Amino acid sequence: MSEPITSTTTYRVIYGDTDAMGVVYHSNYLNFFERSRGDLIRARGVSYRDVEGDGFALPVTQAYAHYLMPARYDDLLTIKVTVARLKRASVRFEYEILRQGEEHLGPLVTGYTLHACTDSQGRIVRLPEIVLRSLGVSQG
Amino acid sequence: MSEPITSTTTYRVIYGDTDAMGVVYHSNYLNFFERSRGDLIRARGVSYRDVEGDGFALPVTQAYAHYLMPARYDDLLTIKVTVARLKRASVRFEYEILRQGEEHLGPLVTGYTLHACTDSQGRIVRLPEIVLRSLGVSQG
Amino acid sequence: MSEPITSTTTYRVIYGDTDAMGVVYHSNYLNFFERSRGDLIRARGVSYRDVEGDGFALPVTQAYAHYLMPARYDDLLTIKVTVARLKRASVRFEYEILRQGEEHLGPLVTGYTLHACTDSQGRIVRLPEIVLRSLGVSQG
Amino acid sequence: MSEPITSTTTYRVIYGDTDAMGVVYHSNYLNFFERSRGDLIRARGVSYRDVEGDGFALPVTQAYAHYLMPARYDDLLTIKVTVARLKRASVRFEYEILRQGEEHLGPLVTGYTLHACTDSQGRIVRLPEIVLRSLGVSQG
Repeated sequence: MSEPITSTTTYRVIYGDTDAMGVVYHSNYLNFFERSRGDLIRARGVSYRDVEGDGFALPVTQAYAHYLMPARYDDLLTIKVTVARLKRASVRFEYEILRQGEEHLGPLVTGYTLHACTDSQGRIVRLPEIVLRSLGVSQG
Repeated sequence: MSEPITSTTTYRVIYGDTDAMGVVYHSNYLNFFERSRGDLIRARGVSYRDVEGDGFALPVTQAYAHYLMPARYDDLLTIKVTVARLKRASVRFEYEILRQGEEHLGPLVTGYTLHACTDSQGRIVRLPEIVLRSLGVSQG
Repeated sequence: MSEPITSTTTYRVIYGDTDAMGVVYHSNYLNFFERSRGDLIRARGVSYRDVEGDGFALPVTQAYAHYLMPARYDDLLTIKVTVARLKRASVRFEYEILRQGEEHLGPLVTGYTLHACTDSQGRIVRLPEIVLRSLGVSQG
Repeated sequence: MSEPITSTTTYRVIYGDTDAMGVVYHSNYLNFFERSRGDLIRARGVSYRDVEGDGFALPVTQAYAHYLMPARYDDLLTIKVTVARLKRASVRFEYEILRQGEEHLGPLVTGYTLHACTDSQGRIVRLPEIVLRSLGVSQG
C-alpha cells in the first residue's frame, strides 16, 4: 500500500441528527463514519453487501471520536476516510469531518474505527480477497 | 376480546432523542410506540423473539402519529398501547404518550400502527396461535 | 400554485438505518421525508435555518407512512416531495420513496406530514412571506 | 472522592436499536452511555436540565467504545457508569454494559466519555458547584 486509500463523502445535516443543544448529537458522527466507509468500499467496485454475500463481515470492535467543533443543522459536511492500517484479520479506518466552506478551520471531528473480519460462524478470520479488493489493496 | 388488551411503558427521554428545536424529534415517537408493543407482548409471556423463532413476523405496514404537545429532555413518559383491532392477517395498535406528572393535560402524542403477519417467505398469513397468544386473544 | 412544487433527493441507506429484520427501520423513513423537505426549501433559495432566524418554525403536527416494500442496506433511494396543500397557517407535504433502478416497481413507501406555522412564542400564525417563498408560492 | 461515584441503569433493546447484522448498531451504545450519565446525575438530586438552567453544559469532547460481544433485540441490558476522573474543567465517565442473566460472561461493551464544562458563551470553565454536586463530589 504505497498510496493511502482514501474516500470523501458529502452529507447534509438534518434536524433528526441534532439534539437540544442545537448541534449534531455526538453518536451520529459514528453513523457518518460508516457512510464514508461504505463509499470507500463501493468506489473500489465492491459493495459491503458483496462482502456479506460471501459470508464475511467486518464488525466494529472499537470506535473513537474526538469532538473539536460542533456541526449544526443544514451544514454540508465532508467526511474523509482513510484505510489507516491493515493487519492479518483486522482493519483500522481513520476519519476527519469538516464543514464545507470552512475547511480552513480544520476538522470538526476526528476519529477511528477498528474492525475484525469474521466468517459466517462469527469466527475471526484472515481478511479474504474480496475484503482486500474492497480496501484497494489487491487488484483481484 | 371483551376487555381491551393494553400495556403501559415508562421511558425517560435522553438528549439523543431530542432535536435542535429543543423537543423530541418526531420520528422517535415511533420508536417509543415499538417499545410499548414489545412490552405488551412480553406481558403475555411471549417475546417477539419467539414469534420470529417460529418463522413469523409482524412488519409495520402503516404508521401514523399526531403531535399535540412536545416532550422534552429528561421527561418521564408513559406510553399506553392498546390492541385496537385484530383481523385475519393483521393487527392494529393504538398509542397515547403522556408526560408523567402532567397526565391531566392529556396526551402529548397519539397514533396507531398497522401490522401484517408474514411467514418466513414474507407471504401474508393468518395470525398464528403464538401471535394470538402474545396479543392476549388466546389462552394457548 | 398552478404547477405543483416538488423536489427530489437521493439518499444511500447505511447499516445504521436498518434493523434486525434486514430492512430499513420504519421510523427512519420519516427522517428521509425531512431530508427531502429541507432540499425542497433550499432549492427555492431559502434555508429552513433562515425561517428559524426570523423566529418562525414549521413543527410536524401529523405524520403518516405507508410501507409497501422494504428498502435495504446499500440501496440508493429517491425521495420525492410535493407541497400538497397550503392553508393559512399550515402546509401538507406528500412523499414517495423509490429504489433507484427499480422505479418501475412503484414506491417503497408513501406518506405525508402536516406542519403548523408557529412564531417565537410557539403560537400558531399565518404562513409568513419567508415560508411562502421557501415553498415556491411567492416570488418575494 | 473516597468511594467511586457509580450508577446502574436498566435498558431493554428494541428493534430500532438493531441493524441488519441482527445486533445493536454500534453507535447506539453511546446513547446508552448517555442514559446512564443522566441517571447518575439525577440520583444525586440534580437534573442535567438544572445544570443547563444555570447556563452550564457538559458537552462530550471524546468518546470511545470497545465492542466485545453483541447485544441483541429484546436483551435487558445493565449500564454501569462511574465518575472516573474529575479535573478542574472536565470529567471522565467510564462505562460497562452487561446482558442481564449473563453478567458472569463479562461486559458486552466498555467505554468512556470525556466532557468539558462550558458556560453560556461556550467557554471552557471550572466545574461549578451544581456540577460537582451532581457528580457526588460536593454536598452543596
